[in-house]
Amino acid sequence: MKQESRLSADAPDSPDSPGTVRPGGRTAKVRAAVLEATREALVTQGFHALNMDRIAAAAGVGKTTVYRRWGSATGLVADLLRDMAEQSLPAADTGSLDGDLRANAELVLATLTDPRMGPVFQAVIAAAACDEQCAAALHGFYATRLREWARVVERAAARGEVPAGTDPAELVRAVSAPLYYRFAISREPLTGADAERAVTAALAAARAGAFI
Amino acid sequence: MKQESRLSADAPDSPDSPGTVRPGGRTAKVRAAVLEATREALVTQGFHALNMDRIAAAAGVGKTTVYRRWGSATGLVADLLRDMAEQSLPAADTGSLDGDLRANAELVLATLTDPRMGPVFQAVIAAAACDEQCAAALHGFYATRLREWARVVERAAARGEVPAGTDPAELVRAVSAPLYYRFAISREPLTGADAERAVTAALAAARAGAFI
Repeated sequence: MKQESRLSADAPDSPDSPGTVRPGGRTAKVRAAVLEATREALVTQGFHALNMDRIAAAAGVGKTTVYRRWGSATGLVADLLRDMAEQSLPAADTGSLDGDLRANAELVLATLTDPRMGPVFQAVIAAAACDEQCAAALHGFYATRLREWARVVERAAARGEVPAGTDPAELVRAVSAPLYYRFAISREPLTGADAERAVTAALAAARAGAFI
Repeated sequence: MKQESRLSADAPDSPDSPGTVRPGGRTAKVRAAVLEATREALVTQGFHALNMDRIAAAAGVGKTTVYRRWGSATGLVADLLRDMAEQSLPAADTGSLDGDLRANAELVLATLTDPRMGPVFQAVIAAAACDEQCAAALHGFYATRLREWARVVERAAARGEVPAGTDPAELVRAVSAPLYYRFAISREPLTGADAERAVTAALAAARAGAFI
């Protein structure tokens, strides 16, 4: 994957600021290669070992381009989080709130326990704890995800599956929170039973009117 | 505080391994000074700027002592977490589960929004994401806290306030998780309303049998 995205004909000083080339053109390819190299570096070395020169080399992109477009390692992490939000999957639509929230919990579980994505999330959480730009980008990522998944609660409210006035984002947060707590805070194992319990508990709370 | 704990008569090579001096004696004073300097460095500079020599100097303790007893910056963070667990407050006993869980949520809220403890928690969460020794120490800290607060659920179960078979630690995790999610993951503001909602939701879920 990293080899495939390598851009051998890199010309660091060519005009490549956003808007000067067509979407999907050179600018997009450079961004994809640099963000892939950033992700790889986060997985293998973590946030604090991020090095702009090594990332440029791994992406096959000129250093000048990387410094000009991303500025710093935290700029790379922030743009990776924007890309993750852009690329993220649409919310489920299974026909029931229970089914949709279960799909959400399973997606969070699969992501955090994935041998590649788990370390990326550890790294971006650490980056956010150390740097304001990364914190804002992490906030932006979850704002996008909460907005997207809030739609399943809005649909459920229209079907009468939750009390009127239920805050959609609060219910979605309640499903994710126990999984992230084990993953990043109490550092406990994360299993299917945890995902299941998170959904059951969040739904029971919603039905009792806890998110109004 | 830092000045008070300064040990001017430090002798780096004196025998100070645990057990060789009385509790509360020189060993304990050295530990208190070094951990206080570590905490201060985490607040002002964050985990990745931790520097053993600067911490030794700030604590007024010889470098040799600090290197011999803590080994590395991650060893300092791990011992700070052990100390935080040892020093942490006993669980509330207000007479009702609602009151006890509310006290727990308010304690978590007060800690995470405290101008001094908030940054310490950001730093130890980042440290855990970067280092296995710190991750194990953070796990140990929350294991201690969960064990302590599980007692309020055990007492409530004896009073019949939650269904028989409710997992005490799961209920306590459910109160903390939404607060930590906002603090370290979605990076959203954390207010009294969030603490209140966390308790209401966790109790409703417990009463519906979600933690059996």
